[in-house]
Amino acid sequence: MAVGPETLPEFHPVAGLRLGIASAGIKRPGRKDVVVFELAPSSRVAGIFTKNQFCAAPVTLSRRHLAEAAPRYLLINTGNANAGTGARGLRDAEACCQALANSAGVRDVEILPFSTGVIGEPLPVQKIVSALPEALADPREDRWAEAARGIMTTDTRPKGATRKVALGDHTVTISGISKGAGMIRPNMATMLGFIATDARIAPELLQTLASELGEKSFNRITIDGDTSTNDACMLVATGQYSGPEITPDSPQLPKLREALESVYLELAHAIVRDGEGATKFVTIDVTGAASQQEALDVAYTVAHSPLVKTALFASDPNWGRILAAVGRAGVENLDLEALEIYLGDVCLVRNGGRAEDYSEARGQAVMNGEEITIAIDLKRGNVRETVWTCDFSHDYVTINAEYRT
Amino acid sequence: MAVGPETLPEFHPVAGLRLGIASAGIKRPGRKDVVVFELAPSSRVAGIFTKNQFCAAPVTLSRRHLAEAAPRYLLINTGNANAGTGARGLRDAEACCQALANSAGVRDVEILPFSTGVIGEPLPVQKIVSALPEALADPREDRWAEAARGIMTTDTRPKGATRKVALGDHTVTISGISKGAGMIRPNMATMLGFIATDARIAPELLQTLASELGEKSFNRITIDGDTSTNDACMLVATGQYSGPEITPDSPQLPKLREALESVYLELAHAIVRDGEGATKFVTIDVTGAASQQEALDVAYTVAHSPLVKTALFASDPNWGRILAAVGRAGVENLDLEALEIYLGDVCLVRNGGRAEDYSEARGQAVMNGEEITIAIDLKRGNVRETVWTCDFSHDYVTINAEYRT
Repeated sequence: MAVGPETLPEFHPVAGLRLGIASAGIKRPGRKDVVVFELAPSSRVAGIFTKNQFCAAPVTLSRRHLAEAAPRYLLINTGNANAGTGARGLRDAEACCQALANSAGVRDVEILPFSTGVIGEPLPVQKIVSALPEALADPREDRWAEAARGIMTTDTRPKGATRKVALGDHTVTISGISKGAGMIRPNMATMLGFIATDARIAPELLQTLASELGEKSFNRITIDGDTSTNDACMLVATGQYSGPEITPDSPQLPKLREALESVYLELAHAIVRDGEGATKFVTIDVTGAASQQEALDVAYTVAHSPLVKTALFASDPNWGRILAAVGRAGVENLDLEALEIYLGDVCLVRNGGRAEDYSEARGQAVMNGEEITIAIDLKRGNVRETVWTCDFSHDYVTINAEYRT
Repeated sequence: MAVGPETLPEFHPVAGLRLGIASAGIKRPGRKDVVVFELAPSSRVAGIFTKNQFCAAPVTLSRRHLAEAAPRYLLINTGNANAGTGARGLRDAEACCQALANSAGVRDVEILPFSTGVIGEPLPVQKIVSALPEALADPREDRWAEAARGIMTTDTRPKGATRKVALGDHTVTISGISKGAGMIRPNMATMLGFIATDARIAPELLQTLASELGEKSFNRITIDGDTSTNDACMLVATGQYSGPEITPDSPQLPKLREALESVYLELAHAIVRDGEGATKFVTIDVTGAASQQEALDVAYTVAHSPLVKTALFASDPNWGRILAAVGRAGVENLDLEALEIYLGDVCLVRNGGRAEDYSEARGQAVMNGEEITIAIDLKRGNVRETVWTCDFSHDYVTINAEYRT
C-alpha cells in the first residue's frame, strides 16, 4: 500500500556520476541488491548520518573515510544492515571497501559504504565481493531508475526526483534517489538518500547544504518513531557543469538551493507516501511556537500518537485524540484558551474546546482525503516547524510482524 | 484479547465505604455506567491526576474540591470523558456534583467527579442526574465487583485486587478497582484507579503514599504512549479499623505500605494485561542507569517502539529492534561495548553486538511465552526503573480504528 500514484521520473543524467548495479543474492537470489556510484575525481561529497548511538559499521566507516579523502565510490547493499555486529562488522565493511578499491584502482578510504536490511546478522562479505565485477562492468550515467530499485528493501516502489535548472547562462542538473518505508524518524531511519548535482559547490557550502536541507526534509519525516542504525543522506557535487564554483556569496546560490530543497523534500515525502502500510500522507504543521524544540515536541507527539494514527487510518475525525496529544507533548503552560487546531481548513479546537462551527460532516470531508494537514497554532511565538507522517494501519502490523519470517 | 486468565477476586468489604451502581444510558441503554462511592465522615482521600495539559473538566473540579473539603462521595461515569469541552464542561461537571450533593445532603465540594469515555462531546448531565436515585438507592459495602464492571470502557474484563493484612493486633483491609485499556501511559491515561482501606492514615502520609505508589505502578505502565485527559488514581482511607492512626513513624507503616503497593501493582498490571489488543505482558527492566531520567528514557523508548511491539506480537526475537531503540533513546555517550540486553535470561547483546552464546532457538523460546522481560543493563550507574507494557497487534488497530463507529 502507498499513498498516491507511483511517480518515478525520467531521470536527467548527472555528468561525472556513473551507476552500476548487481545481484549479490544477499537475501534473495537474483534480486538487485548492490549499487555502486562512481564519481569523477572532481566530485565533492557531504552528508548526514543517523544519530542512533548504535550506529552501524558502514556509518562509522563512511564518516571516517569522508574525513580522510574525497570519495570516488559509494557502495550500497541491501538485505543486511551490518548493524549490531560489533568489531566484526567494522572489519566486514572494511573488507568490502578494500575489495572495491582493488578492483577500481583507488584507495579504500575513497569508498563510502552503506548497508540496509536486517540488523545483527553478519554481513555476507563474500557475496558482495563476488558481485563487484558485475557492478563495475557497465557503469553508466543513465541507470538512475535501476539504482532506485536496487536500494529498495521493504519499499513498495522506487523513489526518485530530478531537475534541470538554469543558473544564469549555465544549466545545472540534480537527480536523487531515496529508500525507506519503516523505522523512519527524525535524525534518519532505515533511510538512505543520494542526491547528486553536476554543479561545482565549495566544500563548506556543500556540507552546509547537506545539513540544512537534510534537517528540514529527511529529518522531519516519521513513520513510526523508530530511528534506524544505518541512515545516511549524501549530497554529491560532481563539478562537471560549465558554470563557476558556487560559494556562499554566489548570486546563483538561492536558485540552486531552492532546486536542491525541492528534490530533498520530494525524496523525503516519497518515503512517507510509501510508509509501511500507509494510506494517508499527513502534514503536521505547528505554528506560533515559542521555540523550535516545543514546535517539534508538539509535532512529533501528534505524529507518533498511535491513537491519532489509527484514527487517520479509519478516516475518523477524532479530534479529541489530537487535542490529547498536544496536551501531553510536554510544553509547559500551554494557553489552552488561545491555541487552535485545524484539520485542513476546518477549525477543530478553539477557546479550549471544540470549535463552535465544527461539524462532524466537515471534519469527515477532510479526513476522507488521502492528503491531510493537521495544523496547530500554539499562539505563543513565531516559530514554525513542519513534520510529515502517515497513518497506522493493519498492514503496518502485518509487515512488521512478518518481516523476518 | 487479554493476557492471562481473568482474575477478579472475592473482594473484602472496606468498612466505611459503600458502593452504588446505576444505568444512565450514556452510551448504551441498560449498561451500568454510573458508580458512586459513599465514604464515611471519618474518611480521608488523596490522589494523583493526569499531567495532560488538556485535562478534563472533572479532573479540574476534583482537584479543586479535594483542596477545599474532605470528600464524602466519588461520582464516576463512563461513556463520556467531559474533556475538550471548555467552560461548558466545567459547568456540566459542577451540575452533576450539585445534584448528588442535594440528593445526599452534603456540600457540592464534598463530591469528587470522574469521567471516562469519548472526548469532546458534551456531558449528558440530565442522564447522569436521572440515574442518581438508582445509584443512591442501595449503597452497600459488598458491591466492589459490580463497581469494577461499572467503570469499564474498552476494557474486556473487570479489574480488582483485595488484601487483608494483620498490623500487630489489628487487621486492615485493602480493596481496589481499576479501568483502562488504551491511551495508557505514564502520568496516567484513560485510566482510573480507586484503592480503599479501612486503616486510619495521617493526611500527609496518605498523600505521600498515593503519590509514591501511583508513581511506581500506574505511572509506569504504557499501552501506546498516549496520555489521557482524564486519569486519576485515588487512595481512600476510611479510618474505620480498630487500630491507631498510621503516621510516618508507625512501626506498622512498612507492612501497610507493602500491602498497598502490591494492590497498586496488581491493578496497574491488570490494565496492561487487558491492553487494547494485547497478547503479551512485557516488563522492561532498566538497570545500571546514571539517573532516573535516562533509565525511564530507555525503558519508554523500548516500550513505545512500534517495531519492538510488533515483533513481540509476532513472538519474533528481533533483538536488533531492541538494540536500535536503546540507541535512539537520547542517552548521551552510551558505552556500547559495556551494556547488556537480555530477553528473559537469554543474553542478546554484549560487547557491542549479538552475544556470542545467543541462538535464535533460545530467543524464540523466551518470545513464545505470554510474559516476557526485556532487561537492559546500561552499566553506567546504580539507578533502576521498571516499566510494563504490551505488544502491538492487529486488534489494537481494529479497536482504535473503530472506536467511534
